[in-house]
Amino acid sequence: MITLSSDFGSPYPAAMKGVICRESDARIEDVAHDFPRQDVRAAAFWLTQTLPHFPPAVHCVVVDPGVGTDRAALVVRAGDHALVGPDNGVLAPVARQLADGDGFEAFEWIYDDPASTTFHGRDVFAPAAATVHDAGVDSVEGLSQTVPADEWVDLRFPDPTLRADGATGEVLVVDGFGNVITNVPGETLDGAFGETVAVGGERVPVRRAYAAVDPGDRLVTVGSHGNVELAVNQGRGDEAFGLETGATVELTR
Amino acid sequence: MITLSSDFGSPYPAAMKGVICRESDARIEDVAHDFPRQDVRAAAFWLTQTLPHFPPAVHCVVVDPGVGTDRAALVVRAGDHALVGPDNGVLAPVARQLADGDGFEAFEWIYDDPASTTFHGRDVFAPAAATVHDAGVDSVEGLSQTVPADEWVDLRFPDPTLRADGATGEVLVVDGFGNVITNVPGETLDGAFGETVAVGGERVPVRRAYAAVDPGDRLVTVGSHGNVELAVNQGRGDEAFGLETGATVELTR
Amino acid sequence: MITLSSDFGSPYPAAMKGVICRESDARIEDVAHDFPRQDVRAAAFWLTQTLPHFPPAVHCVVVDPGVGTDRAALVVRAGDHALVGPDNGVLAPVARQLADGDGFEAFEWIYDDPASTTFHGRDVFAPAAATVHDAGVDSVEGLSQTVPADEWVDLRFPDPTLRADGATGEVLVVDGFGNVITNVPGETLDGAFGETVAVGGERVPVRRAYAAVDPGDRLVTVGSHGNVELAVNQGRGDEAFGLETGATVELTR
Repeated sequence: MITLSSDFGSPYPAAMKGVICRESDARIEDVAHDFPRQDVRAAAFWLTQTLPHFPPAVHCVVVDPGVGTDRAALVVRAGDHALVGPDNGVLAPVARQLADGDGFEAFEWIYDDPASTTFHGRDVFAPAAATVHDAGVDSVEGLSQTVPADEWVDLRFPDPTLRADGATGEVLVVDGFGNVITNVPGETLDGAFGETVAVGGERVPVRRAYAAVDPGDRLVTVGSHGNVELAVNQGRGDEAFGLETGATVELTR
Repeated sequence: MITLSSDFGSPYPAAMKGVICRESDARIEDVAHDFPRQDVRAAAFWLTQTLPHFPPAVHCVVVDPGVGTDRAALVVRAGDHALVGPDNGVLAPVARQLADGDGFEAFEWIYDDPASTTFHGRDVFAPAAATVHDAGVDSVEGLSQTVPADEWVDLRFPDPTLRADGATGEVLVVDGFGNVITNVPGETLDGAFGETVAVGGERVPVRRAYAAVDPGDRLVTVGSHGNVELAVNQGRGDEAFGLETGATVELTR
Repeated sequence: MITLSSDFGSPYPAAMKGVICRESDARIEDVAHDFPRQDVRAAAFWLTQTLPHFPPAVHCVVVDPGVGTDRAALVVRAGDHALVGPDNGVLAPVARQLADGDGFEAFEWIYDDPASTTFHGRDVFAPAAATVHDAGVDSVEGLSQTVPADEWVDLRFPDPTLRADGATGEVLVVDGFGNVITNVPGETLDGAFGETVAVGGERVPVRRAYAAVDPGDRLVTVGSHGNVELAVNQGRGDEAFGLETGATVELTR
């Protein structure tokens, strides 16, 4: 199986699918093609929320503001999975997660002059994914050249500041519902369910389900990602809390 | 085959796909993931317009404002199809349709404490769909426990008021083109094609094709759903008629 | 394989998929369902950018403002591919491209009175695609009747005016990133990379990669389509250049 992830919108991913279908019989599943455009960190976050649920696969990821420059193309072997994408950090967090403590290896994918300088998804990454898929993940070593761990671009999500009475965190992404996903670990709310916490000074109920407050009301919860999430039942948390990606979030028990 | 329908947008459905692919070799086809958010009735309508066209399949449906509360998870056997989703009415109209007069049966899907309280699509419904698919629709009875018909949440679309000279109806949904889909049966327009009807007092041509009026002009037609639809050729009917979901529509011959 | 392309948005394509799955075991891949609504020329352009990358397939294309009128339904045999869609020009450019100089043949698909007058994607084109797929592209001749080349609707992209010192062209489409795709061939920029050209009088750098200019800055490049493209690094070219589909573009070396 080959999965596809990008910020391409439509219809560019179709050209990638065509290229893959031409070279491989792999089953193709779309992860998403509407990652926030050129937002490498947001894409890296969403990859950690989606790819680990798949069975072993080749994951082709193209969020690539540096397309056409001399940034490398990488193939990463992580556990039973392979990741294919640009060397800009987008693959790093999910590679660590898929490797599950076992370590992972990055390889540089060497490619001939591609047909375009603006669409390496079609001309570099899709063919690479098809090749890696058909040759098998273990073949990556022979297909490309190792990149030492300290030479490829790393990306780590910012660490929150945890205090006895709360935390100072950051908004990692806002999802399509408007739910505000922070980098504060859900454990920060242990014991607070049914109570309230202060978000930027205002007390907000801590609940397990969106519907535990009235429609339109705000709540603090732990999302499916395991982090603290700020939401509105049947509404948009980002608007109600006035928060967007990158904003600081102050939580006080 | 497993179909997926939700109001999740992106990329949450990818986690569901991953979970299903991990457990099952089922072919997966997306129906839609952009149903109006938390609008159970709109989703129920669109399911009646899409699922019956599929061959026998397991249809996993997640429009679930009550996620994390004690609302039940259902598996419904309807004809050769199975439906998996929350007990909030979203499955009811399409279940009746798929059963085609033969009756259908609802079963409660019993699940262990899921990994999250906010993403049962990933943690409850996707695994249920994979299990039902692999075990076969007829196995549903053994996998779960029957819910008597009067104990699960029903949902019926509102009935229009039909008069000799017209009808008073309601807007069920507005589609992506801006076409206004009402609950008034198309038969109300029998004999009126080529003529006009009054919509809220103003005469509008009744035509079979959008292009039977000039671009930008309004028309009344019968849509692919069999109901009266208010549209604009190459434009948006909702804006031209000033109507949105839930609004009352007055049609007079 | 059957590919699907339309301006339907969602969830109408799901009904088409269901119909195809009911009739055929064909693999289905979506090309795009968000082509600009009822914009036949834009769809025709995007088809030329996507379908030729696929292996031999039946491509079902529904951008059909004339649905329900007497416009014909076509099946086109072009190289190893078949195209199915309305006779409004949308298939013409990609048919020429897929035939690759070998010529192609158009056939009229004869259909019984369909279930709807507004959704031939479901009621005419999807069944046609399934039938052509299962019977094989070479069978098209026996399934339908030939349409002489001068009797079906042609569509050609406008020609730019090329001068020794530049070109006058037109915006064919704007992509989801806001990149402005013109009809001016990339060769017009030969020798200009690293320099500037005047776009409507203002000098703009000509570069191979978006990231060769600072974020937010404008550039002129050659896109993956081979044409001159006006872009902004990590921004929207359409807004920065004030250009939309159909606008005139003046380039001067």
